[in-house]
Parts: sequence; structure tokens; C-alpha cells
Amino acid sequence: MTEAATALEALWAPESVAVVGASADPAKTGGRPMNYLLKHGYSGRIYPINPRAETIEGHRCYTSIAELPEAPDAAIVLLGADRAEAAVRDLAAKGCKVAIVLASGYSESGADGLARQQALRDAAGNMRLLGPNTIGAMDLTRGIVLSASGALELKDVPRGGISVASQSGGILGAILSRGAARGVGFCKLASTGNEADLDLADLIDAYARDPDTTVIAAYIEGIRSVGKFRAAALQARDAGKPLVVYKVGRSSAGARAAVSHTGALAGEDRAYDALFRQVGAIRAQSFNDLLDLPAMLASGRKMQGNNVAILTSTGGAGSLVADSCGMLGLNLPDLEPPTGRILADLLGQSEPMTSNPVDVTLAGVEPAIMTAATKALLASDNVDGVVVVVGSSALARPDVTVGAILEGAASSDKPLIAYVSPHAPHLVDLLNRKGVPAFAAPETCATVLGAVREAPPVADLLTTEAAVALPNLRGSLNEVEALGLFDLFGVSGPETRIVTTVTDAQDAARALNGPVVLKVLSRQIAHKSDIGGVRLGLDPDSIGAAMDEMAKGLASSDLPEPEGYLVQEMIGGGIEMILGLRRDPQLGLMILLGAGGVQAELLGDSSLRLLPLRQGEAREMVAELRIMPLLQGYRGAPPHDIDALVAAIEGFARMGHALADRLLEAEVNPLFVRKKTEGVIAADGLAVLTD
Amino acid sequence: MTEAATALEALWAPESVAVVGASADPAKTGGRPMNYLLKHGYSGRIYPINPRAETIEGHRCYTSIAELPEAPDAAIVLLGADRAEAAVRDLAAKGCKVAIVLASGYSESGADGLARQQALRDAAGNMRLLGPNTIGAMDLTRGIVLSASGALELKDVPRGGISVASQSGGILGAILSRGAARGVGFCKLASTGNEADLDLADLIDAYARDPDTTVIAAYIEGIRSVGKFRAAALQARDAGKPLVVYKVGRSSAGARAAVSHTGALAGEDRAYDALFRQVGAIRAQSFNDLLDLPAMLASGRKMQGNNVAILTSTGGAGSLVADSCGMLGLNLPDLEPPTGRILADLLGQSEPMTSNPVDVTLAGVEPAIMTAATKALLASDNVDGVVVVVGSSALARPDVTVGAILEGAASSDKPLIAYVSPHAPHLVDLLNRKGVPAFAAPETCATVLGAVREAPPVADLLTTEAAVALPNLRGSLNEVEALGLFDLFGVSGPETRIVTTVTDAQDAARALNGPVVLKVLSRQIAHKSDIGGVRLGLDPDSIGAAMDEMAKGLASSDLPEPEGYLVQEMIGGGIEMILGLRRDPQLGLMILLGAGGVQAELLGDSSLRLLPLRQGEAREMVAELRIMPLLQGYRGAPPHDIDALVAAIEGFARMGHALADRLLEAEVNPLFVRKKTEGVIAADGLAVLTD
Repeated sequence: MTEAATALEALWAPESVAVVGASADPAKTGGRPMNYLLKHGYSGRIYPINPRAETIEGHRCYTSIAELPEAPDAAIVLLGADRAEAAVRDLAAKGCKVAIVLASGYSESGADGLARQQALRDAAGNMRLLGPNTIGAMDLTRGIVLSASGALELKDVPRGGISVASQSGGILGAILSRGAARGVGFCKLASTGNEADLDLADLIDAYARDPDTTVIAAYIEGIRSVGKFRAAALQARDAGKPLVVYKVGRSSAGARAAVSHTGALAGEDRAYDALFRQVGAIRAQSFNDLLDLPAMLASGRKMQGNNVAILTSTGGAGSLVADSCGMLGLNLPDLEPPTGRILADLLGQSEPMTSNPVDVTLAGVEPAIMTAATKALLASDNVDGVVVVVGSSALARPDVTVGAILEGAASSDKPLIAYVSPHAPHLVDLLNRKGVPAFAAPETCATVLGAVREAPPVADLLTTEAAVALPNLRGSLNEVEALGLFDLFGVSGPETRIVTTVTDAQDAARALNGPVVLKVLSRQIAHKSDIGGVRLGLDPDSIGAAMDEMAKGLASSDLPEPEGYLVQEMIGGGIEMILGLRRDPQLGLMILLGAGGVQAELLGDSSLRLLPLRQGEAREMVAELRIMPLLQGYRGAPPHDIDALVAAIEGFARMGHALADRLLEAEVNPLFVRKKTEGVIAADGLAVLTD
Repeated sequence: MTEAATALEALWAPESVAVVGASADPAKTGGRPMNYLLKHGYSGRIYPINPRAETIEGHRCYTSIAELPEAPDAAIVLLGADRAEAAVRDLAAKGCKVAIVLASGYSESGADGLARQQALRDAAGNMRLLGPNTIGAMDLTRGIVLSASGALELKDVPRGGISVASQSGGILGAILSRGAARGVGFCKLASTGNEADLDLADLIDAYARDPDTTVIAAYIEGIRSVGKFRAAALQARDAGKPLVVYKVGRSSAGARAAVSHTGALAGEDRAYDALFRQVGAIRAQSFNDLLDLPAMLASGRKMQGNNVAILTSTGGAGSLVADSCGMLGLNLPDLEPPTGRILADLLGQSEPMTSNPVDVTLAGVEPAIMTAATKALLASDNVDGVVVVVGSSALARPDVTVGAILEGAASSDKPLIAYVSPHAPHLVDLLNRKGVPAFAAPETCATVLGAVREAPPVADLLTTEAAVALPNLRGSLNEVEALGLFDLFGVSGPETRIVTTVTDAQDAARALNGPVVLKVLSRQIAHKSDIGGVRLGLDPDSIGAAMDEMAKGLASSDLPEPEGYLVQEMIGGGIEMILGLRRDPQLGLMILLGAGGVQAELLGDSSLRLLPLRQGEAREMVAELRIMPLLQGYRGAPPHDIDALVAAIEGFARMGHALADRLLEAEVNPLFVRKKTEGVIAADGLAVLTD
């Protein structure tokens, strides 16, 4: 068990708890935690610290932490930021294992606050901290709540396998209160606030190891350590516990102007998308999905294929669900004849039914019919999951309807969910509590079924071959240096000569024996074309004048003297692509593949992964592009060398691994993908290393 | 008033109602309507028809329709399909104005049902019909309900300005019950079912003319007459009543394989998108939006700009709403100094506040502060709308919170909405009833604010110039015929010669004085390139061999003898686009503009409108394309002739208008858009007219 996990264990199963700054008034924030702790069933030793009260809720108050008869396992500090630091120092001195600090006024409020937070951290010494600026932690399974969340006012919080890690206390409360109202059961919940110490990854890791947790939901505003998050998420993955994440900041990412070329293709939020995908986490696209997806996943049922059957008594609602399923790529197959026969018999029809959604109409809303129809659909070989629509008719007889659905559900281990068409929160609650996930939005039905399709296992990491001898380069490289670097990793450029005189250029053009490209060679010029530093389609006769003109242009500009000129074999044919590595300040190196050329760039066809890359991911990146058919050979055109493209991506990944923190950016643009077996050629390249 | 509107008026304000097949048991479907009619306050004359009962709910029963003492204004027929036709015939004979038929078993159930529906229609004669297969109609403002919808079991249905037209009765009930639970007030609601007579457009038209209706919501499965729908939607638009539509069938559209070239770019559902947009209707993207958008629009408040301020006491929820707003293109400007000053004073801070969302923290959750802060934000010049986040703290003091928000809202006519973070349906209900739209999904807050931005007026129709003399052509045209037709509408091709011999071809190439294209000319060959029927870059020396080869290839194939060959000026430069007209079986002619070339085609960059086109729409179509920057002059490239492209689109629109039903399909591919002032050239064209 990690040190953080041990500390968190003390939070969730403390034998003794100090409540520092406990108020005798349960209506006050300072009074709530004692009240909640007792109300939700804590039976260990409680030490309220309050110099001005004798007892609180029957428990003797202490005037100071020093006075406590033992080192408490856990403490919750309810004091303001001005007094919390001293309390934390005293708790640490007493030998407390972990303290929760609710106060705000730390790193979220400027430089002074940041200093205050550092001091708080120092005061904690070896004691672990949750917060500051947190709403606390709770384990509903064991009935231990160390929190001021107003959501704990609830009398009846359903218990279940969903544990929540949130960087916001308000969101934690919203999830808890919304879930409880819908019969969704929770296990452990905690908000990490400013994360002076324990962070989201610590919680996810602890949940992954927690026997009571079956599904993890995380609300994320930002990830502090991508490595730690990745490890925790993979820990959950290995433990077979789905991790659902909701991350804010999608639109602020869009607002950040993209500075470099591939920058425009990527966006910070896409990097998070890649990260979540690479660790097998499910990203909730709407806030409600952060509750709905875990509610579904907690059922533990999996779709073994892509086929959904819908059972309804009301055509419109059936259409809504069907349309939503179709939008997410789920199939609605016609019924198999044996299934259609059973349904026809149930409904007194002569012809076997085929249509899906299966509309039993109002006449079919009988428990026996609904149960048998549900069972028949679940038993059908070409059905992987079933949606039962609960219509207005169920309002009159909720128990009968729910009973029929439950009996059907028990007959199979395929996913069965309910779409509740009218306003009927009591039915949603009842169904969820009985283990049938129920939803009030048709789109959600499709989303949750899509999420329980059997996911492929996370592949092994790509092997990084034996270290190559890296050139000793720094700063912005010129094209020759960049392409030379890329060549070490199997990504090669065209035949190239460096020249400084017209005569050399003419000789080079002659030697290359075909149309050539003339380029300026300079570490200072990143976009050669923009300053007239590239001329295409030259020959020995025309190259001299072109070089003179280029030199004249450069001389009349403010640009520095170039290192020389390049005469390069001109690449014709092939599909233009862009391959790049970029560094996200938060998430580290990421690899980008995009369709090349001006048009494709405007149309934004690109794919992205974070390093380290896993086996098969390079090929996935290619397959994700919308221009994939072009690579495969479109409309009679020959197929292109996808294998070589995959090798180039993996070469770049190895380069990123080898250069690690030294690499800031690298890009091949264009990378020509030629016909099958003819390889790829890096027609231009740039790289920026640390100085 | 239209005839349909008169009939609908009889539905909503009947002085007398016949209930045919009324049951004395209010628990039965046949018993509900009498029960609901009385319960919701109908005070006119009621005639139950039931030969086996003396009275129902105190009203004398009649044994037959013929026996009634007068012609009822409206009737609701609760009999099965086997007996409904006779009842409809009797009602028509009696002089009833409009009858509702609830029975199913008509056009939705195959050929027999369709015949049954035709017979029902015939039996109605001049009497108007709603249904069959409808749940009925209701006017909650006047308390007149002619419906069996279980949603009418509700005791307390809020009344308001939203009227609902639905093609599904179940959906109608779902909207009513969900809305009622959230305090959203309705006016009139009706489902049209199979639309044997009155249809969705009739309802929309009637609502547009109805003084009690302020917002119209429509659930659509398919539009029977696009012209009628368009007219009704524009009627609503002219009356200043927002029309919100939800249409199912988005995914089935995706499933229909695109058959022709531009077919792959368009999709039936996109045509509906275009239709809704062209009539100024708002398309709900999720089913919940069909309730949420009208709830917002019913407030009547408009965003005059794009700037939103968020007031919150809980940071996480504020971030959720902010992120959602950003995703939909709403701005969150920093606070103006005077506003920031007011807020700082309220919260006892020395520095003016600037951040938006404005986080007053828990300490700021005081009525005086919340009211003053709301007012200050609403009064700010750079704020067009405000979202107030209702956090868990409001649960304890709902009236105080709501009171503060209401007082703030009353100070301005800018949109003010509430995001309710915890589960708090009573707060949502209370706020909505008091006129402050309240929502439980952060994404919805953004959606509804986006929807109340001031919309541009619907422009006048594009003028269709004086009729040109149309050539007498039929069936598939060859390229010369097609380009000749397009030329009549200002879309011209390259200089072209028709040849049949090699000598003529060589002469033509010489005359064209530059590289030429050789093409086969045939009405039977739609895709010339695919069969080797196009050769580019020829000259007088090379054209002979190319033509021989082409002829040989054709001779050895199963293809018919061509009409000849074309020698065409070869177009170089310019941006390749595709311009087309296609006929949607339901919605008529539509015009498509797309980026051309294989890559762009794969990337699906296109825009679409239905005919008739309005002024400015052609330019909008261009502006919608993601390659627009390319047309405008990208990265130092010159701007292209967008004016000529717009003229070509409008020319195609006029052609569609002139050929009307004769035109099945027309396409220019590629259309070269050249540099500014240099025009566009149709480098190839096809057209299919009716035979």
C-alpha cells in the first residue's frame, strides 16, 4: 500500500477523530461535521476541540489539540485560514495521521494565499493533508463522514459501489445529492480542493485498491502530475474498475491561440482526450454523464456486441431512444425469427414481429407480457442489450411495471436499462435501487450502452530500442540538423546537398539529375516559404538566378546571414502529411499526425496521442484520420505505404523518448507518404531543443 | 383565418362536445376524457355517447350520435378502429365541425390500415379530423381538454405561453408532465398522430395566430408538405413567436447510403437542418432542449450581444457553466471597473473584482449581497445576460435565495437564468413559476442563452429573373448539354470544341492555343474519369494518340457509342469546388456547395440550403465552409472571386426555380474559383431531367 493510501485509509476508517473548531450549533458550517459524523453512524472516539464549550452533542470538548488523550487517526480542521496553520502544526506534533483543512484563502487567491498554503504544507510535516479548500471526505459504506457538505443533510443516501474523487467540493455535493435522489448508490467520496498534498491521483489509486469500490468517478479541473494520474488510472484499469472522468476547460483551450503550426491542429483539451483514452478512462461529455455513466457501469453488465433492442409501448419514445442509439453507432437489428415468433404470440399477432423498437402498444402493458418480452429480447442471440421504455401507463401501476422489468433483468446478464418517458422520479429511484439503471434522457440511454461495450485491453508500451548516440545539438535546429536527427529514428529526408555558391548549386542540381528544390538553410528561419526561402522545380540552368534572387531578398531583410543553401531532390507524388511532437506544459510530450496541405490544415484532420505510445497506437492514429481512405487507395488509386507511416510515427515516439525533456518541438511538414512499399520521405523538418 | 384554423378553434373553444364511446369507468382509456374534461374545468355542453349507460359523471348519455339535440362543435371518438369510421360518418352527418379519433390501426400498420385511414377520411367529408392515432388536444388556458393523455392526471398544470404540436401522443404527455414538474407553463397542446387531415403545419399556423401562445414547440417525425410547413413556420416568425423543433431521424439518415457524388456530402437530415434554419426555427439538439428552449424563450428576454456574466458561490459549478458557455461561443468578459467596484464593496474587498464567473463564496450567500450583485451585473454595459448559480446553501433557505434572484431579475429586461447545482426540483419549480428560467444542466444554460441572442430577420426571397428560353432536353444530359444549360444561368464552362475525328481534334487543340483536355462526350457515361474518358494536358501533337487510345478503350467495353469527343481549354489554378442541385423526396430541391478534390470530399466540407433561396443565403453558404479562409486569401495567397461564386450559386438556384419539377439533379464538379475579378469556370457538369 502506498503512503497516500495508508493516510486515506485513516480518513475512511479512523478509530479516533479530532474535530478542530467544532461549533455547538449544527446549523453553522463549523457545527455540521460533528452532526453529520454522528448522524451517519460513526462509532469511534470523537474529540471536539472548542475552548468555549463543555460538550458538543454529548462529547467532551477539549481546549487544545495538545490536551487530547491520544493521537487521533484523523482530524477535520474547521478554522479559518488565519488559525488553520497552527492547528495543523499541533495535530502533526500530536501524531495525527491525516488532517482535512476546509478553509479557503490559499493558492486559489493569489500570491499571499500561495505562501500561506506552502506554510500550511510545511506545518503538516509528515502528517498528510487533504485540502485546503476541500469539503472533506466520506465513506458511506462504513458510515464515516468527515465533511461539511450540505448534501449530507439527506436522510437516506443509497450505498453502492461508486466512489467519487472531485477537485471541487460543490461538485461533490451536487453529484451526491443528484445521485441520492435517483437511487444511485455511493461508496467513498472526497474532494481534494487545492491539493497541497493528497491529490486526485491519490484518491483514484486508493479507490482502485478499495474492495468496496467498483466504479470511480472523477471531476477534474487540472492534472498536476500526468505520470501519477496515468499510474493511478492504469491501477484502476488493472483492477477492472471503470474510471469515468469529467474535465472542465474545453472552451478555454479553444481560446488559447495556437502559436505554432501543429499547434493549430492540436489543442490542450485534445491532449486530455488522448490521455484519458490512453489509460482506458471514459470521458463524460456532459456533466450529467459523470453520474449516469457510473450508475450504468455499477451494474457490472457488458455489451458483448453492438446490437440493441428497444421494448416500448409508446412509439415516440421508442423512436427517440432508437435515434439516439443510431447516432452513437449502435445497431438496432431486426428481430430474429424465433424471438419475433415469441413476441407475436405474446401479443396475439399471426405474423412474427420483426421491427425494432418493438412496440407492444398500450395493449401490451401487462406484467406477464412485459416480463416475457423482456426475457425473449435478452435471450436473443442478436441482442446485446435492451432498453425498456417506461411510458405514462406505468405511472398508475409503478410496482407492476418495475416488477416486470426486474424479473426480466434477472433472466440474463446482458445490460438492461430503462428509459422513463414521463416525469417519474420515483420510478427512476426505484429502478436504480433495484439494480436496473434508469434514465430520463434518450441520449443518455445510448451513451451508457455505448460505454459498456467490451473495451479492448490496454496494450503494452511500445518498446524503445537501444539508445542511439544523440548529436549534441541545442536550440532551434536548421533543416539539415533536424532531418539528420529524425534520420537516426528512421524518418529520412530526400537527397540533399549543402551549398554556398552558385557553382556548387549548379553542380548539385546536375548531380541530383532531375528537378530540384532550393532552400535557405538557417536556424533562425522557421517558416522558410513565408520569406521566399523555398524555390521548387529548378534545374541546373535556372538554379543560379534563383539563388541570386534568394540571397538578394535575404540581404535586404533584417534576417541574419544563413548557414548556407540546400539543393534537394524534389519529391513528387505521395500524400502530404504532417508529423510532429509537441510539449504540453501540463501533460508532456504529445505526438500529432495530420493531413497536410493548406486545405487539410483548414479542415483540421488530425490525431493525437501523449507519449509514451503503446503498441498499435500509431496505427490507430492513422486509422482515425478522415483521409484514411485516401491512404488505403481511394477510387481506384493505389494504396499508399501505411506501414512506413506507422514506422515513422513510432520512430518519432522513440525520438521523443530518447530526447525526453530536451525536446520542445519537432515537426516534419510535409511528410510524403508514397505508394505501398515505397516508404515515406520527410521533405522538410524543424526541431527545437532546450538551450 | 384558414379553414384548418377555424376547425382547430372549434377544438379549443367548443360550446358543445360529444364524447363518442365514453366509458363510465374513469380508470379506463375510454373513461378518462370525460373525467379530464370536467376536472380541468370545461363548462360547455357535454354529450357522452354510450348506449349502455344512463349517465356518466352526471351527464345524460345518448345511445347514438343521431340522437344528439344539436350538432356538437367538437367530438372525441374513443372507439376502436372497427367502429370509428361509422362514428365519424355520423358526426359529419350531424354537422360536427371537428372530430378527434384516438384509435390506432391505420396507416401506421400496413396496407390494410392505410385503406382504413382513407375510408375514415372519406367518411369525414367536410368535417375536419385530428388523428387517427392521436392522444387528442387541449387548451390549458381555457381549461378545455379533449384528450386521454395520462399526463392530465396531474392536479396542478402550470399555465403559460408555450403551445405544443406533436406527431406523437406519448411525447406530448412526456413534455407536459416534465414541464409541469418544473413549473413550465403551457397553453395549447395537440398531437396530430397519423395526420389523415389536420397536420403539424396546421397546428403551428394556428398557434402563430393564437393570442394566448407566445412560443411554439414541435415534435416532428416527418414533414408531409414542406411548402405548408414553411408557410406556417414563417407565419410564426412574422408573429414574433419563436418556433422550437425537435426532429427524430438523424441517424437513419446516416444509414442511407449516399448514391451519387454530392449525395455523399449531403444527408437527408442536413436538409431538415437547412429547412429549419431557413424559416428561422430553432432546432433542439437534445430531447430535453425541446422543453428547455421554450421555457427560456417564454421569458421573452433577448441577449443583445454575446456577453454572459456568471454569479456563483461555488467555484466548481461556476466553471461548469462557464465552460459550457465558451463551448457555444458565448463570451465571459472581465467585469467593467464600475461593476467590479460595486461587487468588491459588497464583499468587503479592497480591489475591484474583475473575474467572471464572479465567485462570492459562501460568505456572499446573503440576500442583500446576491440581489445587489445580480442587479450590478445586469446593469453592466458589457453584460448581455446573467446566470446565477444556486448552490447547496440555497437548500436551507429557498425563499430567501429565490427572492434575491427575483428582485435582481426585476431590475432589468436582460435574460437572467438560474443554474441549480444540487438536486433541488422544488427550487427549479419555484423559479420557473416566478418567471426565472431555471435549469439543472450546465450545458443547457449555455444552449438557452445562445438561443435568445437577437436573430437576424428572415430575408426576402431571391428574385428569380425573367424566364429564359429553356432547351427542350430530357433525361441524362451530356457535358455539352449540361454546361449549355448552366450557361443560361450565368455558370459558364471553358472554351470547348466538339470533335469526332483526330484531325478535328488536332485543329481544335491548335485553335485553343495551350494545353487542352480531351473528354468523351456521352449521355450514358456519368463518371468519365472512371472509364478512362478524360485526358489532361494534351497538345496538338499528343491529342491524336490519346484520342485513338480512348476510342479503343471504349470500343472494347460494353459502353455505348459516344456522341463525340470534347477538346477543352485546360483550366489551371483556382480553388476546386462542387456546386450541385439535388432533389430530396420529401423536401424538394436543395442546393449544395462543397470544397472539391478528393481530400476535401473525404473531409466533408459542404453547406446546403433548400430552394427557394433567400437574399444573402448564397454568401452564407460560402462563409460556412471551413475552407473559407482559402477563398479569402490564406497565408499571403491572393483572394479568390467569392462574388462570382455567390453569383454561380444564385444562378443555380434560379435554374432550379426555372426547371422546377423537371430537374432531378445537376452538378458542376469541379467548379474552379479563380482569383478575385477573374470569375468561376465550370470545368465539368452533369444534369438529369425528367424523361
